[in-house]
Order: sequence, then C-alpha cells, then structure tokens
Amino acid sequence: MIYFDSDYMTGAHPLVIKRLNETNSLHTVGYGRDEFTAEARRMILDACGIDDGEVYFLEGGTQTNAVVIDRLLDHNDGVIATDTAHINVHEAGAIEATGHKVLALPNHDGKLRACDIRDYIADFYRDDTHHYMVRPAMVYISYPTELGTIYSRDELEAISSVCREADVPLYIDGARLAYGLAAEGADLSLKDIASLCDVFYIGGTKCGALFGEAVVTRRPELLPRFVSLIKLRGATLAKGRLLGVQFSTLFTDDLYCSIGRHAVALAMKLKSGFVKKGYRLYMDSPTNQQFFVMPNDKIDELREVASFELWGPKGDVETPVRFVTDWATTERDIDELIAAL
Amino acid sequence: MIYFDSDYMTGAHPLVIKRLNETNSLHTVGYGRDEFTAEARRMILDACGIDDGEVYFLEGGTQTNAVVIDRLLDHNDGVIATDTAHINVHEAGAIEATGHKVLALPNHDGKLRACDIRDYIADFYRDDTHHYMVRPAMVYISYPTELGTIYSRDELEAISSVCREADVPLYIDGARLAYGLAAEGADLSLKDIASLCDVFYIGGTKCGALFGEAVVTRRPELLPRFVSLIKLRGATLAKGRLLGVQFSTLFTDDLYCSIGRHAVALAMKLKSGFVKKGYRLYMDSPTNQQFFVMPNDKIDELREVASFELWGPKGDVETPVRFVTDWATTERDIDELIAAL
Amino acid sequence: MIYFDSDYMTGAHPLVIKRLNETNSLHTVGYGRDEFTAEARRMILDACGIDDGEVYFLEGGTQTNAVVIDRLLDHNDGVIATDTAHINVHEAGAIEATGHKVLALPNHDGKLRACDIRDYIADFYRDDTHHYMVRPAMVYISYPTELGTIYSRDELEAISSVCREADVPLYIDGARLAYGLAAEGADLSLKDIASLCDVFYIGGTKCGALFGEAVVTRRPELLPRFVSLIKLRGATLAKGRLLGVQFSTLFTDDLYCSIGRHAVALAMKLKSGFVKKGYRLYMDSPTNQQFFVMPNDKIDELREVASFELWGPKGDVETPVRFVTDWATTERDIDELIAAL
Amino acid sequence: MIYFDSDYMTGAHPLVIKRLNETNSLHTVGYGRDEFTAEARRMILDACGIDDGEVYFLEGGTQTNAVVIDRLLDHNDGVIATDTAHINVHEAGAIEATGHKVLALPNHDGKLRACDIRDYIADFYRDDTHHYMVRPAMVYISYPTELGTIYSRDELEAISSVCREADVPLYIDGARLAYGLAAEGADLSLKDIASLCDVFYIGGTKCGALFGEAVVTRRPELLPRFVSLIKLRGATLAKGRLLGVQFSTLFTDDLYCSIGRHAVALAMKLKSGFVKKGYRLYMDSPTNQQFFVMPNDKIDELREVASFELWGPKGDVETPVRFVTDWATTERDIDELIAAL
Repeated sequence: MIYFDSDYMTGAHPLVIKRLNETNSLHTVGYGRDEFTAEARRMILDACGIDDGEVYFLEGGTQTNAVVIDRLLDHNDGVIATDTAHINVHEAGAIEATGHKVLALPNHDGKLRACDIRDYIADFYRDDTHHYMVRPAMVYISYPTELGTIYSRDELEAISSVCREADVPLYIDGARLAYGLAAEGADLSLKDIASLCDVFYIGGTKCGALFGEAVVTRRPELLPRFVSLIKLRGATLAKGRLLGVQFSTLFTDDLYCSIGRHAVALAMKLKSGFVKKGYRLYMDSPTNQQFFVMPNDKIDELREVASFELWGPKGDVETPVRFVTDWATTERDIDELIAAL
Repeated sequence: MIYFDSDYMTGAHPLVIKRLNETNSLHTVGYGRDEFTAEARRMILDACGIDDGEVYFLEGGTQTNAVVIDRLLDHNDGVIATDTAHINVHEAGAIEATGHKVLALPNHDGKLRACDIRDYIADFYRDDTHHYMVRPAMVYISYPTELGTIYSRDELEAISSVCREADVPLYIDGARLAYGLAAEGADLSLKDIASLCDVFYIGGTKCGALFGEAVVTRRPELLPRFVSLIKLRGATLAKGRLLGVQFSTLFTDDLYCSIGRHAVALAMKLKSGFVKKGYRLYMDSPTNQQFFVMPNDKIDELREVASFELWGPKGDVETPVRFVTDWATTERDIDELIAAL
Repeated sequence: MIYFDSDYMTGAHPLVIKRLNETNSLHTVGYGRDEFTAEARRMILDACGIDDGEVYFLEGGTQTNAVVIDRLLDHNDGVIATDTAHINVHEAGAIEATGHKVLALPNHDGKLRACDIRDYIADFYRDDTHHYMVRPAMVYISYPTELGTIYSRDELEAISSVCREADVPLYIDGARLAYGLAAEGADLSLKDIASLCDVFYIGGTKCGALFGEAVVTRRPELLPRFVSLIKLRGATLAKGRLLGVQFSTLFTDDLYCSIGRHAVALAMKLKSGFVKKGYRLYMDSPTNQQFFVMPNDKIDELREVASFELWGPKGDVETPVRFVTDWATTERDIDELIAAL
Repeated sequence: MIYFDSDYMTGAHPLVIKRLNETNSLHTVGYGRDEFTAEARRMILDACGIDDGEVYFLEGGTQTNAVVIDRLLDHNDGVIATDTAHINVHEAGAIEATGHKVLALPNHDGKLRACDIRDYIADFYRDDTHHYMVRPAMVYISYPTELGTIYSRDELEAISSVCREADVPLYIDGARLAYGLAAEGADLSLKDIASLCDVFYIGGTKCGALFGEAVVTRRPELLPRFVSLIKLRGATLAKGRLLGVQFSTLFTDDLYCSIGRHAVALAMKLKSGFVKKGYRLYMDSPTNQQFFVMPNDKIDELREVASFELWGPKGDVETPVRFVTDWATTERDIDELIAAL
C-alpha cells in the first residue's frame, strides 16, 4: 500500500527524531523556558527577518488558531475568512467556543480577495446599527489554502494593505507553510510572509515534526499575556523543550524548506502523471495537495494499492479526490501510483 | 411627525399599563414565583392548547434567543438559520458568545426551506469527518420572518417533519408573533405553532408589552434546569410578577391577537396606499412590516413628516425602506403618510 | 400579612410609576438613544460630581455585575471579592460563565479589608508561577454589603488606595445604594463613592424602580465598546427609555435618597423594637436589612402575621432571620410587627 | 547539578523513546484511529479491569482536566475540590474559562474529606434558593494529591459512596498516578481506582512519557460525543498514534508501575536522608514528591549543587522546599544530595 491520505501519517523527519533522541536524557526547566526553546525562537526570528518579535510554541493547528484568534479579538468581534477556511469548517466550532463568529466570505480558488474584505468592512461601518452586529476585527487566511492554492505577492500585498488601512490584524495559518514556500510559482519568501501579516504560524505537525506549531509575530503587543492564555486553553506543553528541539532542527541547514521542496517536487510529478493519463484537475494546486476528478470505479480499483481521500460527497459517476505528499513520500511511491492509474 | 421606525417606540398598550398601575402596590414574592406569573402561565398554555408544557418569562428577544439556544445545544452543536436571521445578523454575536455557531443557509423571502435543512443534515452525516465539524442540532426560524413574511402551514409542517425525522428541535422566534398570527393569508393559529415546533417564544416587547417574552414548550424535558440558566445569563427579573401581569393582560379577552389584527390592518392599508402611488414592493409582506423601494429624493422629502428606516445601504438613486405599524398606529397616521407620498 | 422578605416585593415608587404613565404614549427612538435616557444620564453624572464620565442603563443586578466584570477583566483574570459576595454565592455562577474566577477572601462583617487585598496581590506576584495562575485584576465590593453593613470613609479610602497602587479597578455593587447612602453613621456621599471607585452601579430595582440599574464611571476608557457588550449579553432594553424615565424620576427632587432615608429610618425603628424585646442582633446593620437571631418557635408564630426570610440553615433551637424595609414599608407595618414579637 | 525540581525535566523513559523510534516511519491513519492507539486502549482497559469502558488520549494535564470537567458538568454546575487542588490554583483559570466554578473546600493534608462533601451538598439543597446558586455536580480529587499524599482505601470508598448517593460523578486527576500506586503504604490498586471513581486519567507526562494523558471511564455514557469536544478544545493530536505508541509501551511488562516504584523507592531514601540530617517534614509524603522545611541559608548553599523548588513564599528564616524524583533519578543522585545537606 502507498499512502497519500495526508501529511500527518508518519512520525517526524529522521533528523528531527534523531535530535529528540540525542537530547532525551538531558534535564531542562519546563514550560518552554529552556535553552532549546530559546534557540529555536532565535533561529525562527532570524529566518523571518524579525528583530523585535516574539515566537510561541503550541501543540497543534486547531489549538493554535483558537488561541491566537481569541487573543486578537475583543468581545463582539469576528474573524473574516473564506467559507472553505479550516476554522470555518473543520475545527468543530473551536472559534465559536471561544465566543467569536467566523465571518465567512466566498472563496475564489480557496482564497480571500482584498476587495471583498474592503467591501465587507466598509458596509459594516455604514450606519450605527453596527453596534449590534459582529465587528470584523481581523482577517484569517491560510497559506497555502485548504485547496492547495497560494496567494501571489500582489494578492497578499493587497490584503495586507486593506488590513492596515482598516486597522485589523492579518493572521496567516501556515499549517502547511513549508509546501507553500516551496510551491511552483510562489513569489513569497518566509520574510515576505512575516512582514506582510501581523501574526502567523509556522506549521510543524504537517511539515516534518512529530507535532507542534510556532506562532510568530513582529508585533508582540498584539498578544499581551499570551503565555497565560496558552496555559488557560490547555495548550502549554510541560516538556516545552520538545518543541524547541524540533523547531531548532527544522530551522537548521534549511531543513524546513527542503522538506517543502521535496514534497512539492513529487507532487508536481504526481500531477503531471495524472494529467498525462487524462485525469481532470479539480483544482490546479502548486503545492503538496493535489486534487483530481476520478471515475468512481477507478477510485475503487486504485484503492487496492493506494490510500487517498475523497474530497466531498461521492458523485454519481465521478468524485473529486485528493493526493498528498510529504517528506516521507518517495519517487518510487509516485511511480507506483502513476503505473496503477 | 408620524412614526413608522419600529414597533418598540412607545410604552405598553393602555390596558397593559393600566394593569401595571393597579397591581403596583401589591406585595408578591419575587423571581416569578408569584400568582400573576402563575396565572399568565396557565392562560398561555391554555391558549396554546398545551396540557403538560412549561412557560418561562424573560426580558428581551436577544436574551431569550441566546438562553434558549444555549440550553438546546450541546458542545460542538450549531443552529441552522437563514443568513438573514436575527440571530445571525443583529444580535452582536450573542449566540457565538455562548459558544455556538450559527449555520446560515440561504433565505427564500426570509424563510428557510425544509429541503435545504434536510440536505444540510444529510450531507453532514455523510462520513466520519463530521466528528470534527459543527453538528446541526437545532433549527431556528422566525415567525413572521425578519422580512415580514410568514410560513404557510404546508411549509411549517414540512420543516417540522424534517426536524422530527432528524431528531433536532425546532425553535421559533416569535418576537412579532402577534403580527404573524394576524397576517393576511395566514393559515397557522397559535395552537398550530405550539404543536409544530418544540420551543417558541411569544413576543411581548414588540407586541404591546413594556418588555418581556414568553418562552413556551410542550416538551419541558428539552429545557432542564432552565430557571438556573436564565439566572446565570442575568435574565431573571427580580420583580418577576411584572412579566406575569403584562402577559396575563395580553391574554385576557384576546388582546394579544387584537393588537396583531389592528397593526396588520393598518399595514395593509399602508401597502395599498404605496402601491396606488406607484411604489414598488421590496418584499411583499402580509404583516406589520412593509418594505418598498423609494427614490432617494423622495426619502429626504418624506422624512420631513414621517420617520422610518432605510433597509440596507443607500443606493445611487433609490433605496429600500421599511415602515412598521403597531398597536399605537392610527388610521390617521396612515392617511397622513399616504397623503405625503 | 406584613411583608419584610425583601425590597423587590412591590412595583415602583408611586412617582416612578406615575412618570411611566405620563410618558407611555410618546414615541422615542429605541435602545436608549432617546432624550429621557440622555436626561437621566446628565442628572446622574451631575449628582455624582462627574464631568467626563459615562452612564449605562441595564436591567438587573446579576446581569450588570456579569457584564461590567467581563468588560473589566482580560483572559486569565479574576475578581477579588468577599466569600459572602453576591457574585460569589447568589448569581448562579454568572461570573464564571463569562470565564472568570471569583477570588474569594474572608469577609469581616461582610466587608473586604484593604490589607487583605494588598497581601493577596503581593503574594500573587511573588514569583514567576503567577503566569499560570488567575491574576487578581479587579476588586468587587458591595455598598452596603450583603449583610447590611457599610464601609466607613477610612475603609473605602484605604481600599481605593490599594487598588490604585496595584492598578486594578475598584467596582462597587450598589444594588441597595440608596440605603447605604442613608445609613445611620454613613460618612460617604454619592460623590465620594463616585470618586473613590472606578466603576459602580446605582441600584434601581431594590430602590424604587420597577427594574433597572445605572452603571456609572468617571473613567469611560475602562469600558470600551460597552454598548456592544451589553447587547451581546442580551442586556439591551429595546424600549430603553423606560430606564431613562425611571432614573430621571429617581434623581428628581432627591427622590432616590429620600427613599433610602425613609427605609432606613423604619429599619432603625424596627431594630430598636427587636432589641427592646430582647432579641439578639445577628449582625449590627445600619441599613434597610436587619438581622436577628430568633427562637424557632417564635419564627413559626410570627410567620402567621409577617413574612421574612431565614438567613441560613435552620438551627436546632434558634435561627438567624432577616427583615427588610423599603419605600413601601410604613410606620404602621413596623408597629404591627413589633407588637407581634 | 542534580535535578529535583519536578518530574517533567527530561524526555521519555528509554523504552518509550525507543518505541517511538521503531515506529517513526510507519504510515497510520490520523487522529487516534490507528492500531497503536487501539492496542493501548485495550491494554489500559485490561489493566483497569474494565470490560465495557472507554479510553481517550489527550496531550497534557490542564487540558485534560478542563475537557473532562466541562463534559461532566451542565450549565450552572461547579466542581468540588480542595483549596489546594491543581484546578483551583495552577491552571490559570482553565476551569472557569469553560464557564464553571471550582467549589473549594478546605484540604486536610491535601485531601478532601467525605463528610465535607456530604455536608456541602446537603447544605446546598437545603432550600429553594439553590436554583440561583452553583450546583455541586461533581467531585475532583487528585491521587496522589498536590502535596504528595494519598487516600487510603477507606477514605476513597467513603468519598465514592457519598458521590454515588448524591449522584455526582467522582473524577480523579492521576497526573502522578504511577507514584500514587507505588506509594509506601498504598492500599489501592489501579483496578480499585478504576472501580471507585467514574472517570480518571492516567498521567503520562510526569510518569515516563514525552507527553500524554489517558482518560479512562467505566461509564462511557458520562462522556457523550467526547471525541468532538476534545477537538473543539484543540486537544486532538493529528498524529494520535504517538499517544498510542507511548501508552502501549508504558503498559507493557508493567513499565508504568515499575517507573512508579523506582521513583518512590528513591524518594523514601531521600526522605530518610533528610530526616537523619535533622530536617523537619513539611508534609509527610509517601510518594515521589518530598517536602521539607529548610533554613534559608541552607537553601542558598544547596542550590549550588542541586535544583529544587521553594514551596510557597520565602519565610524569614526558613522556607518549605520540594524535591521530586522520577524514572531518571538515580541512587547516585540521592547520595550526592544527602551528602550535600
């Protein structure tokens, strides 16, 4: 069986697990006040080109989104996102559970448009009734998106500009950031991301770590007393150094980006193989998630040798499907998959 | 100046305020355990044709919706409603503040469709990923709707049936129930409403009371320990008998319905006057809210003699407007308004 | 039967209900943007000696406490109060329901001590573990207290001073403020209260109104976007002018204070009568709540002619009891009660 | 330097980290639906002597307490615990953040007494005012307690009995369960714990795992839709098998208990060494946490060679201190420490 279900099906990248082994018996203080965590923080800020910023390490993506968004919003505030946003669909209502509404706007290939954000905010402030409505007080986008697509530099600059004018923070969910940075045609670097948004997180769980996400901000004043809120939400890891060890490894010798490049290269090979075999793209993704439309009988047949996800309800004759690569995917996996098409 | 802004611009119906005066100096126990409240409860259950139900009195609509919905939902649960629903737009995020998502479906003349509810629920349970999504666990409709329209008996029966099959409670927001029951062409009685939904509230604030809403259910087991939750949400009136006095008056000699009939009759006269003068209906409403499209210069002119609300953002040349009647509106008010068109 | 159960057993003071009648048929805009509310705001600020402050009107005490405290606190923050505080015992967990811990300190005759507050805060900041604890971020006291006692000027100044040094807001629950201001031996005026705390509320429900409380602050920046939060918590009255009408009446010709004086004078007469008959004080209260210890058989006997509350669990032979006076209590009520002892 | 600060200062027990290595490159489905997790679940239920129970794996203790308690409680409900309980002091208000009050009772050597629970509940239901109070709806104890002490079988049976009579669930926080089971004089087995409470968790983080806690219940109906609530609170691990791998290792060949025995044996040796040197016990603990009273100058001196925590504010001449052992502590560590006293 070859596996393309998702990018969280194995443990950690070999270099990450190796480093966890090497440091296992060392004693450190708890709760992320150790030297490994301090080192990871420095490496990340450096890679992001941030001088006076802050980095916080959390355990998983849903948790990170809920804690960051709750911190950025005041009572009555909502977060603008696409209707397809992870926070709007697949987090079990975690944002609402902190008391905040997700203000869902239509997606365009999984993306928000700057003009839609601008119009929504302008319409909100049109008259006095807004005091009794949910205030659009931040913007959430994912990079890459839930549909594998990426924002161009122009698109992100436009969104960033709208947010600054409206004085609402822009937050980027980077659960799969490694694959976005390495995407075919991407014109945004990590430093670009860091400077165009206010807060973002560098995904570890789906990009080579056992688990863990690194929240980064160049505006620490936006996250006051954040250490306490992380604890309140049960998101503080007692052995915090586990996150420091992992992220310092991921940011040594460019490992994080090379994981991205590896997975994207194989994803491109996979897409090319599907296209050559005549499959229709469901979404044209330049990242490690690939979406096709596949006849139902072919789906059943292919599942004998490969595992992958249906993307939405099963159609009458054909259904969208998703194939995901990661650091553990090999050339041979792709070859076998293409051969089986 | 003649007033058509809304149905909460005066105090209480003369008979209600009269009764508040008469009972003002009497001593009763607090928190709704008095005899006036008990009497109002009996009268309402009787009018609803409910034998073993329960009635709870709260202070206002947003409060009532938030407390009822929070009680009906479990963690992770959301409430299906139209995108135009009061709870989705005009309650400042009160539902989300209790931790729950409003699952907004497209409205059709302000109404939910039974088929859309059925499809949404079916799609939700399609596969196992629903464990990580917001469960559609109740349905909210308003009668009449925020756009003044009403459900027909067939429509409400269909929705009721879908809800029973899916085992999700149906809750009706009756903020303007008096006007819905008296609506032109309405084929639903109070008893019908009571039997087709699981919980609903009879609006007092907009229908002749100083303030107050009566939550009614024929299934008290759906609202366990509700008295405590009402207190927790700060919705318990110390002098609870004020609500009992008002509602027992509204349900004496059919006052509640006669208030509805009065306002609807005048609203129909108003609509007819507008139509004769050539105004286009923005929404064809059979209740006390009337919506027209009006040229902007006419709006400015008319505002010299009458107050009313714009319904949405001002257009380039014309704008939707709303006129509302209530128990205090007179034939003469309507005549003056029509004359000024 | 003569009634001493509580101060919310009748309607409104005759002058208040009279004014509600007089204004009943007038049209005003809703949600407290009317002229009555504006007038009440001006009168209250003037009575409080506040130039640039703000006043907000809410419906009841539990609601007011929950909304104010939620606004004053950040995530992870708690409110210091006595173990006997209304918010700690009798509000069904309303504070916790907004996510905040009540940090209960021992009471001394129902009161907090400045030194206890200072010590608690100092101990909290002792070491770094406080990041994982609930931050004491405001102080709640009631005036008069739940046990009818009052703070002296010296005591309140000391608390106020501790709060300013620690930079935590001081909030006073004035549910029975009229009776505190009129208390025997009180050396604090309304202006003193207003200047020594940061936010407080003037109780209407228990002091002559049908319902309603007025939140006052000389530091409006402590309550940002408070109108929206009030709506979010379902505490916005559609016919907001009802609160404006009531409070402007209460602050006309010193009515609010004269209600206090009337009730306190009768309470003193009541206390004197009990003491003469040999009853032991359970708490020596200078306000409208009076507490005695009464033999159980006497309780049963007295209940034939008067209603009053047991204060705590019934003892083996005697039990604390409470008698409350208000604007509706008469000299004759007291005479009859004393005669029946 | 020798380390006695806490039991979370190293990585995982060598056998646990070994197994994580061995399984690192395997592909499994995510979110705990893998075979490792299923195996760990079976092993734990077997060790607990539970036939039809359920096991859920979470990431950390604060998170676990907040999610379990939120699930067990209804609106208005509170949890009875000692004033020293971890949930009352050191979780940053995580319980209150889910809307629930911690009902703190005085501790006796860190423990709750059955009679205090019984009295509190009885007093609550004394009269009707309880509808406006926080209902005591579950009991939380920790085993061992935050002060290192343990409940005897008699004590736990008494508490269990009170809870059953009152129909409130008993929940045990087993963050350090391994050390409680191995405690000197302990007369409770894992099976006893499992049968005397309704829900408990087996701590991994402090007992040999990298991280992770296993919630166990013999009454799965108490935790309906718990998988969804875990996700909602951001407590779902994408690579859920990491928890399965760790716990199946901890429950292979009695590793969990042998970790406990190792640490307790060394703690007893440590205590004995301190006592021989004339130090006073601050608390007589039979588990891996040891508390002494130490002169301040000795504290400063000892900190040159060993790290440990002050237990509370520094006194004028002496201060309580805590020393903790775990799987990584060696005989030599103890010898060196004693020598340095």
